[in-house]
Amino acid sequence: MATISFSGIFPPLPTAFDNNENLLPDKIRFNIGKLSRYDLSGILILGSNGEQVMLSEKEKIAAIEAARDALPAGRILLAGTGCQSTRETISLTRASAAAGADAVLVLNPFYYKGNMNQGELVRHYFDVADASPVPVLVYNMPANTGMDMTAPMIIAMAEHPNIVGLKESGGNVVKMGEVLGKAKPGFQVLAGGAGFLLPSLAMGAVGGILASANIAPGHCIEIYNAFIAGDITRARDLQHSLIALNAAVTARWGVPALKAAMDHLGLFGGHVRRPLLPLNDEIRKQLVGMMGEKGLILYKEN
Amino acid sequence: MATISFSGIFPPLPTAFDNNENLLPDKIRFNIGKLSRYDLSGILILGSNGEQVMLSEKEKIAAIEAARDALPAGRILLAGTGCQSTRETISLTRASAAAGADAVLVLNPFYYKGNMNQGELVRHYFDVADASPVPVLVYNMPANTGMDMTAPMIIAMAEHPNIVGLKESGGNVVKMGEVLGKAKPGFQVLAGGAGFLLPSLAMGAVGGILASANIAPGHCIEIYNAFIAGDITRARDLQHSLIALNAAVTARWGVPALKAAMDHLGLFGGHVRRPLLPLNDEIRKQLVGMMGEKGLILYKEN
Amino acid sequence: MATISFSGIFPPLPTAFDNNENLLPDKIRFNIGKLSRYDLSGILILGSNGEQVMLSEKEKIAAIEAARDALPAGRILLAGTGCQSTRETISLTRASAAAGADAVLVLNPFYYKGNMNQGELVRHYFDVADASPVPVLVYNMPANTGMDMTAPMIIAMAEHPNIVGLKESGGNVVKMGEVLGKAKPGFQVLAGGAGFLLPSLAMGAVGGILASANIAPGHCIEIYNAFIAGDITRARDLQHSLIALNAAVTARWGVPALKAAMDHLGLFGGHVRRPLLPLNDEIRKQLVGMMGEKGLILYKEN
Amino acid sequence: MATISFSGIFPPLPTAFDNNENLLPDKIRFNIGKLSRYDLSGILILGSNGEQVMLSEKEKIAAIEAARDALPAGRILLAGTGCQSTRETISLTRASAAAGADAVLVLNPFYYKGNMNQGELVRHYFDVADASPVPVLVYNMPANTGMDMTAPMIIAMAEHPNIVGLKESGGNVVKMGEVLGKAKPGFQVLAGGAGFLLPSLAMGAVGGILASANIAPGHCIEIYNAFIAGDITRARDLQHSLIALNAAVTARWGVPALKAAMDHLGLFGGHVRRPLLPLNDEIRKQLVGMMGEKGLILYKEN
Repeated sequence: MATISFSGIFPPLPTAFDNNENLLPDKIRFNIGKLSRYDLSGILILGSNGEQVMLSEKEKIAAIEAARDALPAGRILLAGTGCQSTRETISLTRASAAAGADAVLVLNPFYYKGNMNQGELVRHYFDVADASPVPVLVYNMPANTGMDMTAPMIIAMAEHPNIVGLKESGGNVVKMGEVLGKAKPGFQVLAGGAGFLLPSLAMGAVGGILASANIAPGHCIEIYNAFIAGDITRARDLQHSLIALNAAVTARWGVPALKAAMDHLGLFGGHVRRPLLPLNDEIRKQLVGMMGEKGLILYKEN
Repeated sequence: MATISFSGIFPPLPTAFDNNENLLPDKIRFNIGKLSRYDLSGILILGSNGEQVMLSEKEKIAAIEAARDALPAGRILLAGTGCQSTRETISLTRASAAAGADAVLVLNPFYYKGNMNQGELVRHYFDVADASPVPVLVYNMPANTGMDMTAPMIIAMAEHPNIVGLKESGGNVVKMGEVLGKAKPGFQVLAGGAGFLLPSLAMGAVGGILASANIAPGHCIEIYNAFIAGDITRARDLQHSLIALNAAVTARWGVPALKAAMDHLGLFGGHVRRPLLPLNDEIRKQLVGMMGEKGLILYKEN
Repeated sequence: MATISFSGIFPPLPTAFDNNENLLPDKIRFNIGKLSRYDLSGILILGSNGEQVMLSEKEKIAAIEAARDALPAGRILLAGTGCQSTRETISLTRASAAAGADAVLVLNPFYYKGNMNQGELVRHYFDVADASPVPVLVYNMPANTGMDMTAPMIIAMAEHPNIVGLKESGGNVVKMGEVLGKAKPGFQVLAGGAGFLLPSLAMGAVGGILASANIAPGHCIEIYNAFIAGDITRARDLQHSLIALNAAVTARWGVPALKAAMDHLGLFGGHVRRPLLPLNDEIRKQLVGMMGEKGLILYKEN
Repeated sequence: MATISFSGIFPPLPTAFDNNENLLPDKIRFNIGKLSRYDLSGILILGSNGEQVMLSEKEKIAAIEAARDALPAGRILLAGTGCQSTRETISLTRASAAAGADAVLVLNPFYYKGNMNQGELVRHYFDVADASPVPVLVYNMPANTGMDMTAPMIIAMAEHPNIVGLKESGGNVVKMGEVLGKAKPGFQVLAGGAGFLLPSLAMGAVGGILASANIAPGHCIEIYNAFIAGDITRARDLQHSLIALNAAVTARWGVPALKAAMDHLGLFGGHVRRPLLPLNDEIRKQLVGMMGEKGLILYKEN
């Protein structure tokens, strides 16, 4: 299996819905077309920002196909395929690869937290990786799953030849360091949040899958490029100025805020699926205010 | 809408699978037939112990139909229908009612924890209750969801005429008291764990949906009956002696232990779906040892 | 060593300070004099509500002496003596007994949470109990300590002949049941919060040490008496109506609210020590409003 | 007030006790003498590793005096002075400055977690900073306090002219970035754990107060120097190789392990105060094994 490099910046694309919460594949294509004018390494479809857990399997495949269709050659299409059961994760992984995903990002099962010990989780990832026609990235997202996979778990998973990396969204840079120090050479760690992109790169991450890359792709890419060029001061200034807006569209107000910000910038944000609700006017105004802060390099039509 | 009384004891039935993890509707029927010789008020199909999050919609309906088929007249069939999106929860709720569920138990959406404020959750439950042809029970299960709905949320939900009760699995008896003191008269609280059945009854709960009722139905019913008869001393002794075994088949080892215990007692436990794994021999032996402890009134063939 | 019965209700008395945060032993005497007209089993001096962690050792002894002086014969004087080190806990325990405490309530050390395993904690309590001239009650208070002692820890501690009971403030009634089912006969559990008094009694607790007993002593005593008399319905109604006010003076607004409520009722509340700050006017008004709610039996001058 | 630069590496010195847990000021001097041959910026006396919460005020002052006495000119003496009450914190802060501390590190009060909102905490730090004759560093240590001060709290504290920096021990690099982006220019952030030193430096921290600097001072200093020299690759390799040992002497086994490691290396570790217990033989052997791992630059006698 040829190695894919996941270096650089990936936006986890929101999934587009109309006012009745129905899927709009065309708007997925529209957003990818717009964002692809930036030097992004690829995109993630059906991550946490993609409301994956709200979609039917049929919708998931339609979203992947739309993304594949719109993504320029040479860019990587990552698809989120983690489900609560191993069997459904395998089935969705295979279907996603068939629909064009270059690699899959697999969130761990988490409903039965009390049973999700290392034995169960490593077995799960090994079973999925055995069955997957494409490389597998492990996805740790404690804010949503309510559990946090440990470094020893990830290091054990990395022994499988088809498990090639980790998206760490908990911001635990110590864990990243422990994994990078002990996992097989070439195991790739990706920052899962723009708020800790630079520290992650310093620790050895190869890039990031960042909600903010949907609305500030140039900003994220510049942090990455400045770091690679050895300009820590520039990278740090850009890092500091991104934190507040990134928090707004992730931990603070979540997907509804990310979609509202995209709408504001000329991308397609659109509706969220309930139980998520659109931002109220007051928060929307605050969000727009934050987008006007100095030092931000936001997405621009051109 | 006629009021259903949920007084008494309900087992949350595990879902039966063969060695390849395929659904066995016959074994659901078998278990219900066996358990129905006890004075249970009904059963819950597709709760947390029923591996609901692991099943396809088609399998869920097949499980409900099997349960309906096997459950004697006069017993209540509860079905777990909570999904991450409002639209899927509504669709499954309607299909479950059509398949024979007398009421639905709706776990809250929890993936987007950061957004699950009172506004979103009350709206979700109201939308589901509006659409549901049968009464709705709210289901709070923090150990699995990683979040804990508060008393004010539940009290607000209780204002909907079709939201008739709460299954509280977090063991928070203060919350039960606050809800019972402020929600509409007749709102029914059910203990969600056998370890706190008696204290819940003291606080005003009408009964319980209890994993232990699958393996010690008589024991659970006797606690309930002793309490109703005013024999607190008897109820307390029974309560104390159930705690260790109940912890073993819930928080400690979970569904694999519940199924192993059922197998041991002549019921059908069978396989779990991965990522869950069967108990190893050492733990199975410990579990069997615990089932031999004094004071337990276990399920018995006759 | 003669057994002390801790049955019934104990208020954990706030410690009185003047406007400069200096100790007022006279006001401790005043409050005890007033409260002792109720049928309380005793009082706790220097609990969490007593701002124990804010006092010098000299102040602690002065507070105990004032309490001993004011408490009528036949009432039990409990003193909180838990410190972070074993040596300081022993020293304070001995001094407290010398100053008149009938028993000590020992909060677990918690600063080095990561090291506070069963070995360390049992050793600590055994060392303290060996050195204590009076009986020792274990005190678990997770909201303040940030850790939660488990049932197996408590059961192991109960093997010491001078460790005679547990104040459980976490509201975990399952833990109470597990402890009562497995600890030595006669081990006494006390509810540490008025919000879960009745469920605790149902589970086998002998009484409670309750912040609300400072402002609603009659209410707490009536719950206890109704339960003992077998009148669960009456006990439950009283329990429900106490929950909101109790939450206000504990988890929600804490010691500043408890002191404000005492001031409002004609007892001496007075200042808190910084970093605690007095209630602002808005919250004070809400608190007074809650004290007017139906069903509450508040402290009354007469 | 002249600005002190806290750039570079500080060990948080353990406090030396004999077999009866009595303070050994001579051994404090011994350790400082040994460690001062490294290019450390200073030392912290009475931090979490110094068992501060276990010491009497008299012992605290004796420890500071010993440290002052032994520390070479030009090195900074930091003293930990946070207590639960504002008044005791002020008193200890003044006494510490009088005993020779150049600056104080003030852990937040945390016992009354539920009341420790921004208003209380900012007022506390302002009161302490007003009274302190030396500069104040804020100390956030969630693993021990059970609470986590937020970026907005720290930013508000930084408005006081005598509050000059933050030791962040929670490893939250996003918070560091938010603070550095919004606090007054010159506000200094120090990493509170060696596991995240490099990422913290990348984010803008000026140095670290690191348990590992007691046993691997040269290793910590080399990470710092490599980073300053722009050699991220070298810094990263050193960072990765330090993580496991650092975890062992902090989160995993804590102060007993740190002291055992010091004993092993020819420094004085000695006893801990109960409830802490010395390492058992098995863990001690594991610890010694870890100290033999490749890539570690441990403390060495001259």
